Amino acid sequence: SDGGPKFISANGKRSLEINGRLQLDASNTSGSRFDSRNIGGTQARRLQFGVSGQLSERIGYKMEYDLSSNDISMRDAYVSSDFKFGEHDATLYVGNKYDDRTMDGATSSNNTWFMERGFVNEALGPERGSYGLGIKGKVFGDSRTWHTSLAITNGRLGGDTDRSDSTTYMTRSHWNPWTSGSDMVHLGAWGFHENIHESDTSATQNTRAADGFNDNVTINSRPIRDPESSNAYGFELATSLGPFAAAAEYGKRSIQQRDSAGGDDVRYDAYSVQAGYFLTGENHGYSRKSGVWRLPEVKDPVSAGGWGAFELATRYQALDFDGTSDYPRGDGHSTTVGLNWYPNDWSRVMFNYIHWNTHNRSGDYEGKDDGDTLATRLQVVF
Amino acid sequence: SDGGPKFISANGKRSLEINGRLQLDASNTSGSRFDSRNIGGTQARRLQFGVSGQLSERIGYKMEYDLSSNDISMRDAYVSSDFKFGEHDATLYVGNKYDDRTMDGATSSNNTWFMERGFVNEALGPERGSYGLGIKGKVFGDSRTWHTSLAITNGRLGGDTDRSDSTTYMTRSHWNPWTSGSDMVHLGAWGFHENIHESDTSATQNTRAADGFNDNVTINSRPIRDPESSNAYGFELATSLGPFAAAAEYGKRSIQQRDSAGGDDVRYDAYSVQAGYFLTGENHGYSRKSGVWRLPEVKDPVSAGGWGAFELATRYQALDFDGTSDYPRGDGHSTTVGLNWYPNDWSRVMFNYIHWNTHNRSGDYEGKDDGDTLATRLQVVF
Amino acid sequence: SDGGPKFISANGKRSLEINGRLQLDASNTSGSRFDSRNIGGTQARRLQFGVSGQLSERIGYKMEYDLSSNDISMRDAYVSSDFKFGEHDATLYVGNKYDDRTMDGATSSNNTWFMERGFVNEALGPERGSYGLGIKGKVFGDSRTWHTSLAITNGRLGGDTDRSDSTTYMTRSHWNPWTSGSDMVHLGAWGFHENIHESDTSATQNTRAADGFNDNVTINSRPIRDPESSNAYGFELATSLGPFAAAAEYGKRSIQQRDSAGGDDVRYDAYSVQAGYFLTGENHGYSRKSGVWRLPEVKDPVSAGGWGAFELATRYQALDFDGTSDYPRGDGHSTTVGLNWYPNDWSRVMFNYIHWNTHNRSGDYEGKDDGDTLATRLQVVF
Repeated sequence: SDGGPKFISANGKRSLEINGRLQLDASNTSGSRFDSRNIGGTQARRLQFGVSGQLSERIGYKMEYDLSSNDISMRDAYVSSDFKFGEHDATLYVGNKYDDRTMDGATSSNNTWFMERGFVNEALGPERGSYGLGIKGKVFGDSRTWHTSLAITNGRLGGDTDRSDSTTYMTRSHWNPWTSGSDMVHLGAWGFHENIHESDTSATQNTRAADGFNDNVTINSRPIRDPESSNAYGFELATSLGPFAAAAEYGKRSIQQRDSAGGDDVRYDAYSVQAGYFLTGENHGYSRKSGVWRLPEVKDPVSAGGWGAFELATRYQALDFDGTSDYPRGDGHSTTVGLNWYPNDWSRVMFNYIHWNTHNRSGDYEGKDDGDTLATRLQVVF
Repeated sequence: SDGGPKFISANGKRSLEINGRLQLDASNTSGSRFDSRNIGGTQARRLQFGVSGQLSERIGYKMEYDLSSNDISMRDAYVSSDFKFGEHDATLYVGNKYDDRTMDGATSSNNTWFMERGFVNEALGPERGSYGLGIKGKVFGDSRTWHTSLAITNGRLGGDTDRSDSTTYMTRSHWNPWTSGSDMVHLGAWGFHENIHESDTSATQNTRAADGFNDNVTINSRPIRDPESSNAYGFELATSLGPFAAAAEYGKRSIQQRDSAGGDDVRYDAYSVQAGYFLTGENHGYSRKSGVWRLPEVKDPVSAGGWGAFELATRYQALDFDGTSDYPRGDGHSTTVGLNWYPNDWSRVMFNYIHWNTHNRSGDYEGKDDGDTLATRLQVVF
Repeated sequence: SDGGPKFISANGKRSLEINGRLQLDASNTSGSRFDSRNIGGTQARRLQFGVSGQLSERIGYKMEYDLSSNDISMRDAYVSSDFKFGEHDATLYVGNKYDDRTMDGATSSNNTWFMERGFVNEALGPERGSYGLGIKGKVFGDSRTWHTSLAITNGRLGGDTDRSDSTTYMTRSHWNPWTSGSDMVHLGAWGFHENIHESDTSATQNTRAADGFNDNVTINSRPIRDPESSNAYGFELATSLGPFAAAAEYGKRSIQQRDSAGGDDVRYDAYSVQAGYFLTGENHGYSRKSGVWRLPEVKDPVSAGGWGAFELATRYQALDFDGTSDYPRGDGHSTTVGLNWYPNDWSRVMFNYIHWNTHNRSGDYEGKDDGDTLATRLQVVF
C-alpha cells in the first residue's frame, strides 16, 4: 500500500524499505472576533522520510524523521523483535516510538478521517510529547481480535543528559467483541502514569481547536507550576458496518502539583463522536491486529479509469479544562465536516470545514469566540 | 546523467531515485583595504540529498534537503502532475519549489558556468527567498522552443503559522526564435509581485560580490522599514554556437514602503554579460524545454582514457542600489574568469578568479574597495 | 558485514549503499557525593543514516549524518579517490572526514570494546572537534602491515564564513612488526598541530569520566583565554593473540596562549590500558590495513541456533590536566568492566560498569569524588 521500494536480500530474510509522506495544507479562518485569528496560509504539515527493514526473520528496525518545519524532528527510531508471549504473537520495541494512546492517536496520520486528530488525543498526552524513548511490548490475540501494549519510557529523544528524566508508563488495549467480514465492533481503553521530573517547572496543554495551521485558535489550559505527576485514561468505542463507520472517544487527565508548591491539581477531560460514510461503497479500513483505522481499498481507482473513493465524515468534539479563581477555566468545542477523496491507495485529497467555539476565561483571546476554518490537504505516500 | 540508482516497479510505472550532490569549496581573498575581507577557508557549499520518483505515469514527487551548514535546509518538496494544457504538455507542482527566475537562477547549481550565480538572480529575489510554498504550473511548447511558468506561493516552508504570510506571484517564459542542431538563440523574461506581510518589518538585500564563502565582501542595500510590496522583472538573452556560448541578463526591483511608515521606496537594478568556450569542442548543454543551461556531453571522458572537457568562461556584472540622504546608495561590479574541468558527466572541478569592486556609502566596509578572490570547487553528483 | 542494501550498476562500476546505525543506551550513576551526579536515564547515543558509493572504479563518495540529538549533525561527507602512491595503494579524501587519531578513536563506534572511547581520544582532540573539512591522504603498505595518513583541514563543516578558520595538520601511522594468522602486534603513533584562529577566545576540554549519558561527571580542564596554537601526540601499543587482546595508549597535548594575552600554556596527558577476552573463542577483529579494531566474526550466531559471541573486557584510564594558582588542576581516573554480547555480525548488546574518580580543584563538583555508573547499549547496524 505504500509506494516506496522494498529491497530484499537473496535469502529473503533481510530487507530495507524507503518510505515518505508529503502532506501539503492550505487553511483559511474567518468569523472570529479577533483579527489575528482570521488568518490563512499554506503549510507543509508533514514531510516525512524514513527507512525501515528486517535484519533477520525476527529483528527489524525503523528510522524516520520529519522535515516539515525546515528542521529535523525525529519520529520512530527503534529496534524491534518479534517473539512468542505464551502462545501469542508479540513484539518488543527498544528506542523512540510513537504512543499507543487513543484510537485516533494510534492511527497513522495518513489514515485518520480528519486532517487533525481529535481533542482526546491532542490534549491528553504526557509532558514528554507523543514520542517516548524506552521499551514497549505489544501482544496480539491469536484470533486477531485484541491486542494490548505496555510502554515504559524515560524522557524523549535528544533530551538533556545532565539530569534524570520523567518516566512514563503507558498501556492500551482493544477488543473486537464482534466481527463479520470487514464489519466489526471495537472496544478500547488506554491509560498512562508519569512521574514528572522536577526540572519541568510548568505543565500546560493549550490545544488547537481549528486546524493544524492556525496557532491562535486554541483552548487554553491552566498552567500548573512544579508538576509532580500526571494520570490519564480513556475509552474507545467504534464500529464499521459496510460503507458506514462511527467512533466515540472519551478521556480524562489529572496533573498533580508538588506539595512544596501547594499540592494543587488540574483536571480536564475531552470527548469526540464521529461518523463516516463512503459514497462509493468502500469499507473503512481497520486493523484488527492493532485496533486502528487504515486506508480503504479503493474499488475503482483513477488509474483504472474510475473516480476513486469518496468519503463523507463528520465529528463533534469538546474539551474542558478546569480552573481556579487565579486562572479561570477554558473550554471549547468544534464541529467538523470532511470530504475525503482517495484517487488510489497512495494519495488523498481532504477538505475540512470546522466550526469552532472557544471560551478562554484568561490568557490570550479571552471570552467567548467562534469562527469557521476551511482547510484542504494534498497527501501522497511513497 | 546522475549517478544515483533508480528503482522501477515491475509494471514500470512506479520509480524512486536517490540523488545527491557534494560541492566542496576553498576560497581566498586578498587586496581589500579591510583586513577582515582578506580571508580564506574551506566550505561545503552544498551537501544535498534527496529522493524523487513517480507514483504513477503522471504523478511524481520530490523531497530534497541540504546539509552543508551542518543543519537541515529544505529544498524542493513537492507533488507533481503531468497533464495536457490544451494541446501542450504541462506540469503542475504543489508544495515547496525552487523559483523559475532569471536564466542563471533557474539553471541547477550543478550546471551554472560560475561557482556562484550572478547579481541579477542573487539580488533581485523576493523576501521569502528562492523557495516558495504553493502551486506552480509550467506549460511547454510542442516544438520544445518555449515554456512559460506561473507560481503562486504563500510564504516559505517552516514559516510561522500564527499569522497570514506574504503572497508572491511569479512568472517566467523563454522562447527560442532560432535553433539549429544544438545551436540556438534564447530570449527570456520574468517578473514577480509580492504582497509583503506586515510582520516583515524590514527589507534588505545585501549581496555577496566575491564568492559563496566570503560573507564580508558584500554590496549593501539600503534597508527599508515596513515594506508593503515589491515588484521585479528581468530579461534574458543567450546564444550557443558550437563550443561558444554567451548570455546577458538585466533585472530591476522596487520595494514599496507602507504609507504609514512614510511611503518611501527602494529601486535597484543589476546586469551581467558572460561568455564561455569549450577548449575541447563540446557544446554548452541547454534545455530547450525549460530554457536553462545543462552540463555538456563530455566527448572524451577520463574513464575512456581521455582528458575530459575544458571550458573557459568570463563574466562581467554590476549591481546598483539606490539611496537617500539617510542611507546613501551602494554599488559594485565584478569580473570573473573561470576554468571548468569536466572529467565526466558526474563531476566537475571549477576555478574562479574574481576581481570585485564595492562602493558602499554607509554601513560596514564604507567607501571604495576592491580585491581579488580565488576560489575552487570540487563537485560530484550521484 | 552491514545490513544495508548495495546497488550495483550493470557495468559493475557504479554502486550506492544505504547504511545506518542505532545505538540505544540506558545509564544509571550512584555513589557520588553530589546528588546531581547520581542520575539515570535513556539516550539514543547514535542514530546515523548515510549513503555511500562508487561513481567509477576509483572515485567514491560518502554522506552521513547523526540524528540522535533530535537534530542534524553531519559526519563524513567526502569525495574519495583511490590511486597509486609510488607502488603503494593510496586514497585521497576531499571534504569532511573523521579524524585518524588514536587507535581507539580511529576505530568505528560500532567496534570499540567499550561504550565510550577512552580519555586519550576524548580529551586530546583539536579545538575544531573530531571532524575536519579539508583533504586527507592515506597510504597503505603492500603487505598490509602499515599505513600512514596526513590530513590538512580548515575549520569544520558549517563553520562561520566571515573569517578565516583554524588550520589543523594531523597524522597517524601504524605498523605491525609481527603477524601470524589473525594474531598480531600493533605499534602506532599520531600527532597534530593546529593554528587556532583568534576568534576562538577560549579553549577548554572538560571530559566525561563516567559514560556518554552523564554530563555532570566530568574531569574539568583549566580554560585558557586566547589560545594561539596547540600540539598533541600519542602512542599506541596493541596485541591480539587468539581470543585475547590488549591495548595501551598514551597521549599528551599542549595549548599555547597568545603572547598578547600572557603567553601562558596548558599541558595535560592521558593514558589507558585495556584487555579483552572472547569467552566463545573468537578473535578480536582487526584491520591490518588501517590499524583499527573491527567486529569479531561470530562463530556460532543466534540465527544458526547458537549463542553468539561473548567478550569480557576491562580498561583502566587516567587523565591529568595541569593547573595554575588561579585555576588549579583537575584529574581523574576510571576502571571499566564490560561484557559484550554479539548475537551476529550486525548487532551487539553491551554492559559497562564504570568506577570513576574525579578530583577537580575548581569549578563545578570541586573536590574528590567517586561513583559507580552502570550502562547498557543495544546496537544495530544496517
